[in-house]
Amino acid sequence: MSAQLRVGVDVGGSTTEAVSLDGSARVVARAERRTVRGKEGVVDGILAVIDAVVPPGGASSVGIGIPGRVSDGRVHDAVNLDISDLDLASEIAARSGAVVGVENDVRAATRGIGVDRFSSSLAYLNLGTGVAAGVLLDGRVHGGSRGVAGEIGHLSIDPAGPRCACGQRGCIEAFAGGGAIAARTTGGPFAVRDAFDRADDGDPAALEIVAGLARGAAAAVRTLALAVDPERIVIGGGIARLGERLRAPVLRELERAAEGSAFLGSLHLDERIELLSPGVPVGAIGAALADHRRSALHLSAG
Amino acid sequence: MSAQLRVGVDVGGSTTEAVSLDGSARVVARAERRTVRGKEGVVDGILAVIDAVVPPGGASSVGIGIPGRVSDGRVHDAVNLDISDLDLASEIAARSGAVVGVENDVRAATRGIGVDRFSSSLAYLNLGTGVAAGVLLDGRVHGGSRGVAGEIGHLSIDPAGPRCACGQRGCIEAFAGGGAIAARTTGGPFAVRDAFDRADDGDPAALEIVAGLARGAAAAVRTLALAVDPERIVIGGGIARLGERLRAPVLRELERAAEGSAFLGSLHLDERIELLSPGVPVGAIGAALADHRRSALHLSAG
Repeated sequence: MSAQLRVGVDVGGSTTEAVSLDGSARVVARAERRTVRGKEGVVDGILAVIDAVVPPGGASSVGIGIPGRVSDGRVHDAVNLDISDLDLASEIAARSGAVVGVENDVRAATRGIGVDRFSSSLAYLNLGTGVAAGVLLDGRVHGGSRGVAGEIGHLSIDPAGPRCACGQRGCIEAFAGGGAIAARTTGGPFAVRDAFDRADDGDPAALEIVAGLARGAAAAVRTLALAVDPERIVIGGGIARLGERLRAPVLRELERAAEGSAFLGSLHLDERIELLSPGVPVGAIGAALADHRRSALHLSAG
Repeated sequence: MSAQLRVGVDVGGSTTEAVSLDGSARVVARAERRTVRGKEGVVDGILAVIDAVVPPGGASSVGIGIPGRVSDGRVHDAVNLDISDLDLASEIAARSGAVVGVENDVRAATRGIGVDRFSSSLAYLNLGTGVAAGVLLDGRVHGGSRGVAGEIGHLSIDPAGPRCACGQRGCIEAFAGGGAIAARTTGGPFAVRDAFDRADDGDPAALEIVAGLARGAAAAVRTLALAVDPERIVIGGGIARLGERLRAPVLRELERAAEGSAFLGSLHLDERIELLSPGVPVGAIGAALADHRRSALHLSAG
């Protein structure tokens, strides 16, 4: 029976989380631990959370969602994890004995959010260190022809906006990415929360940062709505943990634009956005439910 | 045998074109006539081109692509045709006796462009009076949850940009739409071509218009590439009839942005855009190939 368990792992900048799912996609066990950066730390952390949710050899498959570019089981440029290149699927397959699939973490979370929803058409807008989205169409994650579908963070919305790490000016991510905001402020993992606190105290620079964040997030929502037109747009990621403090200014920004444009108003974007419920391990669940038949690396290939 | 013919009609601002297709989707006959604006002129024009491509009662179905918003066979706000509201499917079904489906013209053309291509993943960027795109995924037109997928013309790329008819500032359409350009220049149907001519003569205002057009078109291409990630992006519409005169500045704008951003460079957008070949009636062919089973209006319902 335990051989039927599918395991999903979500590797985040701060925590690595795993779930095991039974044949009905119900969560059987769940575990998490602090992420240790670097190749060895990340691989050991993944193996540890897998061991915590299934008995040895008990995973029929392991799906891993991880930041960075992913192709053929390899992870590239996962800057927040201090990984430039890692053959993660081979490493985990060799040491766990399971069939292993690896994908980008936003994709995995998009699939996880789609579970148990009536609507199979949604976008997941991740406001974290960077800004990226995942698109679910007809219940399946839409990757696109080059695997970049949803990478809207690097669309410029203002040629006079802040310089982006990508080289352009005024990218959505330059306004609404936690990394860009940290680089312009106090820095550190709480830079965005700090900016909201100081904005509450009336600090002009902080007010500008919060306004820019709302502007970038609203532009991301409009871009997804007009290019892809999903029924729901779910906002998650580290910045979304601010909850109502984030939602309120984003809503105001969407409403302001809708007041100026009957067309935008007709889209009712204010009713179509929602914040991801914290505490539900959508990233790990989505990773567990990925279709590994198409992309998996078996032990024999490891 | 003639009962097997599927008819497609493309209603444009200047011409109304029809094709009839055999069971293998080959063009059997083709006809066009000048579009006469207003409800009566449009309906009569459609019936005339249908009669020109099939014998009376010989159409198994009629698909119509027309500008404006389309829902349940009705056309709304087709400004260039002087139509605010028209139950087009009922009108044509009642007078032709055929099963009739109506859809937006950009959607129909997107499907028509996809015919005979190896790649079933493409976007069609229409640069006409307005700017809108159609998205083909897995060989099917992706309409979205509210029928606006691809309506990227009203995404703002510059808060200091020109005022758009929609109420916002700096919309892609305000830069790259023929209507917006006409409103800012000499006006008339040749306003864009006039601007290119004057730009060739070094006129500063015209150079700015051409630069803005290239900027808006390049932003539209990037938006489609990052949100939807189709393999190919085909540019058509009235402005695309400028051919190389349009393609060159759009390419330069894409290359300029790619030079500043390794991420954008990695997308090879310069190799993925193409101009729609003039002369192929993709709009009428696509309209003929629409799946009328889901949305058609039969005579009995007319």
